[in-house]
Amino acid sequence: MAPSVNRQVRLRERPAGIPQAGHFELVTAPVPALRDGEFLVRNDFLSVDPAMRGWVSAVANYSQPVGIGEVMRSVAAGEVVASRHPGYASGDRVMGVFGWQEFAVSDGSTVTRKVRETDLPLSASLGVLGLNGITAYFALLEVGAPRPGEAVVVSTAAGAVGATVGQIAQLAGCRTVGIAGGPTKVALCRNEFGYDAAIDYKAGNLDAALGQACPRGIDVYFDNTAGPISDAVLRHLAIGARIVICGTASVASWDPPPTGPRVERHLLVKRARMQGFIVFDWQRRYEEAVGRLADWVRAGKLRYREDILDGIEQAPGAIAGLYRGENLGKRLIRLRHG
Amino acid sequence: MAPSVNRQVRLRERPAGIPQAGHFELVTAPVPALRDGEFLVRNDFLSVDPAMRGWVSAVANYSQPVGIGEVMRSVAAGEVVASRHPGYASGDRVMGVFGWQEFAVSDGSTVTRKVRETDLPLSASLGVLGLNGITAYFALLEVGAPRPGEAVVVSTAAGAVGATVGQIAQLAGCRTVGIAGGPTKVALCRNEFGYDAAIDYKAGNLDAALGQACPRGIDVYFDNTAGPISDAVLRHLAIGARIVICGTASVASWDPPPTGPRVERHLLVKRARMQGFIVFDWQRRYEEAVGRLADWVRAGKLRYREDILDGIEQAPGAIAGLYRGENLGKRLIRLRHG
Repeated sequence: MAPSVNRQVRLRERPAGIPQAGHFELVTAPVPALRDGEFLVRNDFLSVDPAMRGWVSAVANYSQPVGIGEVMRSVAAGEVVASRHPGYASGDRVMGVFGWQEFAVSDGSTVTRKVRETDLPLSASLGVLGLNGITAYFALLEVGAPRPGEAVVVSTAAGAVGATVGQIAQLAGCRTVGIAGGPTKVALCRNEFGYDAAIDYKAGNLDAALGQACPRGIDVYFDNTAGPISDAVLRHLAIGARIVICGTASVASWDPPPTGPRVERHLLVKRARMQGFIVFDWQRRYEEAVGRLADWVRAGKLRYREDILDGIEQAPGAIAGLYRGENLGKRLIRLRHG
Repeated sequence: MAPSVNRQVRLRERPAGIPQAGHFELVTAPVPALRDGEFLVRNDFLSVDPAMRGWVSAVANYSQPVGIGEVMRSVAAGEVVASRHPGYASGDRVMGVFGWQEFAVSDGSTVTRKVRETDLPLSASLGVLGLNGITAYFALLEVGAPRPGEAVVVSTAAGAVGATVGQIAQLAGCRTVGIAGGPTKVALCRNEFGYDAAIDYKAGNLDAALGQACPRGIDVYFDNTAGPISDAVLRHLAIGARIVICGTASVASWDPPPTGPRVERHLLVKRARMQGFIVFDWQRRYEEAVGRLADWVRAGKLRYREDILDGIEQAPGAIAGLYRGENLGKRLIRLRHG
């Protein structure tokens, strides 16, 4: 029986910096009838990601900004509940850009992938087996290009991307150092995600702690924050270091861009490389990453944490909470139990 | 007949920023007697390079700083005039780190290469066929990795490195845009070095001029300046852009580092790469570059300019003049005519 009512979170106002609950509104809309070539997805989990800040920003980005009044763009995972599309059948589990809403009509173009790891929880397809895990996999291995024995430093080290990066770097034979905020996350880095060392940047003395943790310099810096954390890391680069720019969580607004110490001399003297990464460029290789990540999860070599909020009414304030660092693990909105 | 007197320029005082004439002193010293395995080089040309600022800086660098009272480190070119070394004979032309002095004793370890292009002026071995040309060759082709049809922007575009970069980029099928200071250098870029467009950054409106010159964005930025010129260029990057950090001529002092707009978001959104380059890493491939560059010079495809100062007494003030932009072309000190 087709559902008739769809709750949606729409963008009400364009935020200048971090999106807050008030920038969104929760509305009720009818579920449209399916046309040929379409199917209906019931979203079971909505993703909450730092990148969503950029998706609603007016500043130049890699995608068109979400329009005012439009359903908030979001990755979600769920099940096909009705279909007039030959490639999708009821019961198929899918992950894709379905938006912050209970039901999404798709013609297939918004599907990122079918979720075939039926032995693993569907929620994992939004985190460790989703864009976070895929990001960690390609950004670290292809852009960071770590070699066994090298020192890899990760910022937001306990986060959905960071924790996966740290563990993949361990699997690649590297020495891993996590940077996180507060003793709880630092303990998580050490005890759950297996970092060789973890540093609480809020405790001060980041510079000294990095020097101690990486006496021969930092070979790979996986950067999810920018800002003062990066400024400190850059003072400890090894010759030939690679810096992966994956996120800028510490920067409240890029309009105008904040100022900081110029990086050119670090890069020059250390012949270092700093490179931006966006996961969508790697779409053709997603299955390779998910296959590998799922194997590691099954083998107990890759751990992940989830921070689950219940109910779509939690979505509007969920991005701001992420930037406040209140989550432990991948933040998700659960729309349905079981 | 062996010379007995050697005039040398020594470092008298460590400069905080750009080295000025007063940081050096001209002294007279005896020419030491040769021991077995040594030979004596008569320097005909001394090189003056922006990088020499870094060689006397106390700030971390890729080499030990020149000590107070030591002969100023410098690349030079000349002729072997006496030898007790089996690999070097009187009359051999050599280029190497012989210092700012008339005569240098070497055991071979300070030789960069023997100059075998006897059909070309010896002075060229310090510029277009020396570290400037070799830098341009590898930094552009290996780090910048330009593809035909791409837009390549070069700062200090009329300089010894920049002018060579621009011409190699042309040879590689790129569209080239030079940034230089003042109408004379801009004219040189257009008329002598074949840039498709040249922009005078001192005229203001660099941002608009870049937008006009590169309407589809900048694919490769060969950066010799850092500072506000780079800030403007970074606002016009194309997706997948490569930024080669080769010098930081616009920065008067790195101690402490100056501040500027943070670059992470540009790199992230454009999946761009920023990488430092130091020519000494490419030593094993120098002959490949010189061979190619010399062929281009002979074929009239690669032009170069020299700015020759006569007499070793010109050396102490020559670096500061470079940073004031007073030279047109590769700056050299000529010690000997003919």
